Amino acid sequence: MRRFIAERTKHLIKRNFLTSSNSHRFLASQSSFFSSSPSTSSTIVSPSSMESSSGASNQVTLQSINPKVLSCEYAVRGAIVTQAEKLQEQLKQEPGSLPFDEILFCNIGNPQSLGQLPITFFREVLALCDHPSIIDKSETQGLFSADSIERAWQILDHIPGRATGAYSHSQGVKGLRETIAAGIEARDGFPANANDIFLTDGASPGVHMMMQLLLRSEQDGILCPIPQYPLYSASIALHGGTLVPYYLDEATGWGLEISNLKSQLETARSKGVTVRALVVINPGNPTGQVLAEENQKQIVDFCKEEGLVLLADEVYQENVYAPDKKFHSFKKIARSMGHEEKDIALVSFQSVSKGYYGECGKRGGYMEVTGFSADVREQIYKVASVNLCSNITGQILASLVMSPPKVGDESYEGYSAEKEGILSSLARRAQTLEDAFNSLEGVTCNKAEGAMYLFPRLQLPQKAIQAAEAEHAAADAFYARRLLEETGIVVVPGSGFGQVPGTWHIRCTILPQEDKIPAIVERLTAFHKKFMDEYRD
Amino acid sequence: MRRFIAERTKHLIKRNFLTSSNSHRFLASQSSFFSSSPSTSSTIVSPSSMESSSGASNQVTLQSINPKVLSCEYAVRGAIVTQAEKLQEQLKQEPGSLPFDEILFCNIGNPQSLGQLPITFFREVLALCDHPSIIDKSETQGLFSADSIERAWQILDHIPGRATGAYSHSQGVKGLRETIAAGIEARDGFPANANDIFLTDGASPGVHMMMQLLLRSEQDGILCPIPQYPLYSASIALHGGTLVPYYLDEATGWGLEISNLKSQLETARSKGVTVRALVVINPGNPTGQVLAEENQKQIVDFCKEEGLVLLADEVYQENVYAPDKKFHSFKKIARSMGHEEKDIALVSFQSVSKGYYGECGKRGGYMEVTGFSADVREQIYKVASVNLCSNITGQILASLVMSPPKVGDESYEGYSAEKEGILSSLARRAQTLEDAFNSLEGVTCNKAEGAMYLFPRLQLPQKAIQAAEAEHAAADAFYARRLLEETGIVVVPGSGFGQVPGTWHIRCTILPQEDKIPAIVERLTAFHKKFMDEYRD
Repeated sequence: MRRFIAERTKHLIKRNFLTSSNSHRFLASQSSFFSSSPSTSSTIVSPSSMESSSGASNQVTLQSINPKVLSCEYAVRGAIVTQAEKLQEQLKQEPGSLPFDEILFCNIGNPQSLGQLPITFFREVLALCDHPSIIDKSETQGLFSADSIERAWQILDHIPGRATGAYSHSQGVKGLRETIAAGIEARDGFPANANDIFLTDGASPGVHMMMQLLLRSEQDGILCPIPQYPLYSASIALHGGTLVPYYLDEATGWGLEISNLKSQLETARSKGVTVRALVVINPGNPTGQVLAEENQKQIVDFCKEEGLVLLADEVYQENVYAPDKKFHSFKKIARSMGHEEKDIALVSFQSVSKGYYGECGKRGGYMEVTGFSADVREQIYKVASVNLCSNITGQILASLVMSPPKVGDESYEGYSAEKEGILSSLARRAQTLEDAFNSLEGVTCNKAEGAMYLFPRLQLPQKAIQAAEAEHAAADAFYARRLLEETGIVVVPGSGFGQVPGTWHIRCTILPQEDKIPAIVERLTAFHKKFMDEYRD
Repeated sequence: MRRFIAERTKHLIKRNFLTSSNSHRFLASQSSFFSSSPSTSSTIVSPSSMESSSGASNQVTLQSINPKVLSCEYAVRGAIVTQAEKLQEQLKQEPGSLPFDEILFCNIGNPQSLGQLPITFFREVLALCDHPSIIDKSETQGLFSADSIERAWQILDHIPGRATGAYSHSQGVKGLRETIAAGIEARDGFPANANDIFLTDGASPGVHMMMQLLLRSEQDGILCPIPQYPLYSASIALHGGTLVPYYLDEATGWGLEISNLKSQLETARSKGVTVRALVVINPGNPTGQVLAEENQKQIVDFCKEEGLVLLADEVYQENVYAPDKKFHSFKKIARSMGHEEKDIALVSFQSVSKGYYGECGKRGGYMEVTGFSADVREQIYKVASVNLCSNITGQILASLVMSPPKVGDESYEGYSAEKEGILSSLARRAQTLEDAFNSLEGVTCNKAEGAMYLFPRLQLPQKAIQAAEAEHAAADAFYARRLLEETGIVVVPGSGFGQVPGTWHIRCTILPQEDKIPAIVERLTAFHKKFMDEYRD
C-alpha cells in the first residue's frame, strides 16, 4: 500500500493541486490559472457570460483577477451544494416535482441546520450579554437559570465598561482569554497563558492568518494530510504557497506514518521547496481517526527535529466516539515530553462550531500560539489588529465552551443531559451510517472514531467511471451528483479532499437527526443498488 | 497647493508606503522588508529578542516570515495604543502613579467603549434570536417590546429551521439580505438585489476580499485617498499590490479634485502600474468631509471612463452633522446619472460599527457588489465560501440597521429618541472639539461634516520636530506620545494615515461622552501650551 501511494504521489498532486501540464513540477503554482478538478473546471474555463461582454465588466474578467483566487477550491460548498440549493428552491416552488421531499445537507459539519438544538445554558448567557439591561429585572429570574445570570455578570465584568458592543483588544477580551487559558490548563494539566490566545471568528481566520504569516511565495510549502479539509488547500492557494501532501493510510484506519512524512518532506526539499509547517487534523477531517498518543509524540519529535511549525487543527476535540480513544492536545503531548516553548512552535485551533455545541453560526474560535519569538508574535498581533477583533458573541461562547457549568451549578444537570444526549446520539448515528455504507456493494467505510464524518471508499464499475469522464467529472463527483438528484442527500466527493488516485470516496456527515437515519439509509441503499446495476461492467 | 502636492508625491510615497531606498520606485513593494515609518521602525528592525535566539523559534523569524506582513501597518492600533494599554494597566495596579486617572481612547471609532449605550430595540431582537426558547413565554412580554418580539419571529422565520446557530448561505441568510436590499432601495430610490449583498464580519473582510480579488502583483494598483483609513494601505500591503495615492486638499475642506485623480492615475500608468480600482471614503475618514453630489458624479464618470472599480467606503452614511450636507450612496448617484450595471463596477461597504448604533463588537456589515460579470461574481462567492459565512448575530444586526422601527411601531418613539440623542450629541461634541483645537496655538482644524473624527493640523516648532527626529519618531507621533503620557488622551498621529510631507496632524475621535468633554479640552489645552512653550523656537 505504501509503495502504491508513493508511486501515485505525482499523479495525485497533478490532479488536485497542480494546473500546469508540466508534470514534474511539485507546486500548487501561483501562476496556475485553471484547476484540473473535473467537477468545477467547466465553470472556470467557460466563455465569458453575456454580462461580461460589455461595459465596465470588461475591466474585471476571469483573465484579469488574481490567479490565486481562481486556483483556490472549496468543495464543501462547491458545485454540488450550489445544485442542491437550486433543487431546494425548486421543491419550494413546485412541491412534488422531485423524487424526494427535502434536501438533506450531509456535506457540511453544520449540526443545528439539521435540527440539533443549542445548549440552553450557553444561549441563556449570550442573550443576557446581548441585552444586559434585563439582567436584574424580576422577570429575568423566571426565564433564566441562576448560574446563567451569574455567569453573564462575570463576563460583563470582564469587559471594560460592560460594553459588549465595543471592539475588544485585537486578541479578544482579556478576561475571556483568561477563562479559556484556565480551561486549557484544566484539560491538559499544563500551564496556558491568556497572552497566547487569539480569539477568531471561527477557526478559519486563524488558519488564514498563519498561512499569511508563513508563506512568502510558492517556494514555501505546508505539509498537509491527504485527504484534508479543503480549508487548508484553499488557504495555501490563496496565499500563494505550495501544498506538500502526506498520505493517511486508509488500510490502517487512516494512520499517519512518520516515514511517509519524512519522505514527502525530503521530496519537497529536493524540489527547492522550503517547508514551513505541518498541518495535523485530530480528530481527522474528513477521515474521522483519532491519533494515538504514541503517534502524536512522533509527530512532535518530527516537527522539532525538522524545525516545522505544528499547526494542530483540534476543533473536533470533544467529538470522540470510540471508547478506546481519547483526545490529547498536541501542546499537552509536547509538554509531557518535556518540550518547552523554545523547543517547538505550535498553534492549536479550536472552534465553537464543532464539539457537542455545534454553534457554527456564532463564528467563535481561538488559536493558542506558543513557541514563537516575541517579535514574530508582534507581527501576528498586528495582522489580527487590522481586522480589529473577532465578534464578541463568538468570544463569549468560546469562553463558555472552555468553561461549561460545573457540578453543583443550577444548570449542571440539564447541561450534562444535553451534552451527553448529543454525543451519544452522534456515536449511534456514526455506527448506523458506517454499517449502512459497509453493507453496500463495493463500499468500505472506516470507523468514525471522532469528528463528524464518514469517508467511505467506493469501488465504482468501469462503466460508471467512463460515464463520469464523458461528463468531465471525477467519478465520485458523478456519483454524488446522481445521489443528490435521486435522493436529495448532499455529500462531498472525495476528490474535493484529495485521495489516492484511482480511489473514490464521499464525505458524509453523521449529523442528520436519528429519526431520519432509517429513511436516509433506505434511500441511500436503494440508490446505490440502482446505480451499480445501471453501470455494472 | 496642487503643485506643492504633486512635487511632494514621491517623498510621501517613499515615507509611507515604500521601504526600499530606491526612491524612483513607486511601489509598495512586496520585497520591501522594513517600514520607514519612524514611529514603528524601531520595533521592526529591533534585534531578535532573547526568545528567538534559541530552539524552534529560530525557524520563524522576522527574516523568514512573509515580507508583506512585515510591510503592513495599522496605526489605529499601533505603538501608541500598545503604550496606552500599558499605562492603563499601570493605573489599575498603582492608582495615582500617573498625572491622570483614566486613559481616554480617542484613537478609534469605538463609541460603546466610551459609554455610548446600544439602541434598545436592536439588542432586544438580538437577545430573542440568541435564545428563541424564551420568545413565547409570558415573562418575555414584560421584558421585551411587542415589536421586538414580532421582529425576532420574522427573522427566525427567515432562517432555515430557525437555527441561529447554523452556518448560513456564504453570502448571508437570504431573507436578511432581502431586508437589507429593501433598506437600500428605500434609502436610494433605486432597485437593490439580495443576490448582490455579501454579509461580512464588519466592513474590513469585504475590503480584504476585494483586494484579494483584484491584486495580482505589485504591478496592480489601487487609487486611495491621502489621508486614508489605514485598513486600505494595510490590505493593499498584505495582498501585495501598490497603493496609488491621490490627495485630499486640506485647504478646501479636504476636497477631492478629479484633476488630481487623473494625474495620479497617469503617473502610476507611466510607471507600469495597472490601476484596478478607486477607493473613496464618504463621509471621510480621518478627514470628516461629506462629498457634494456634483463631485460624486465626477468620480463616477472618472471610474466609468477609466474602467476602474469604485470601492465606496460608506460606513459613515448615518454620520452627517453639517446641516447643508447629505449622504448620497455612489450607487444612487450612478443610477441617477443613468449608468446601469454594465456601465460601472461598484462595491459599497457598510458596517454596523458606525452610524448612531456603533455596534463595533458585533462585527456585522455587508458589501453590495454590482457591475461584475457572473463568472467573476462566482469567484467572489467562492472566496466568501472558504470562510463559510459571517456571524449570524452580526447578520441580524445588519438587517436591523437597514430596517429600524417605523412610525407606529411600539418601539419607534424610544428608538427615535435614542438615535437623535446620539446624533445630536455627536454633532455638539464635534463642534466643541473643533473649536477647542482651533483655539490652540498653531493648530487648524476643519469641520467634521460627518464620520467620527477630527483631523487637526499641527504647526509644530522646529525644536519639537528635531526632538522627534532624535527619537526616530515622526513629529506628530512624538506629539501624540507626549499627549498620552501627560493627559491619558490617546490619538493617532497623522503619519499613520498619510499626509502631505512636512505637515503634521492627529486624528481624534469625537466620541468621549459629553460630560467628559470639558475636562478633555482643559487637559488638551494645558498640555498643548506647555508643549509649545517647551519647544518654542
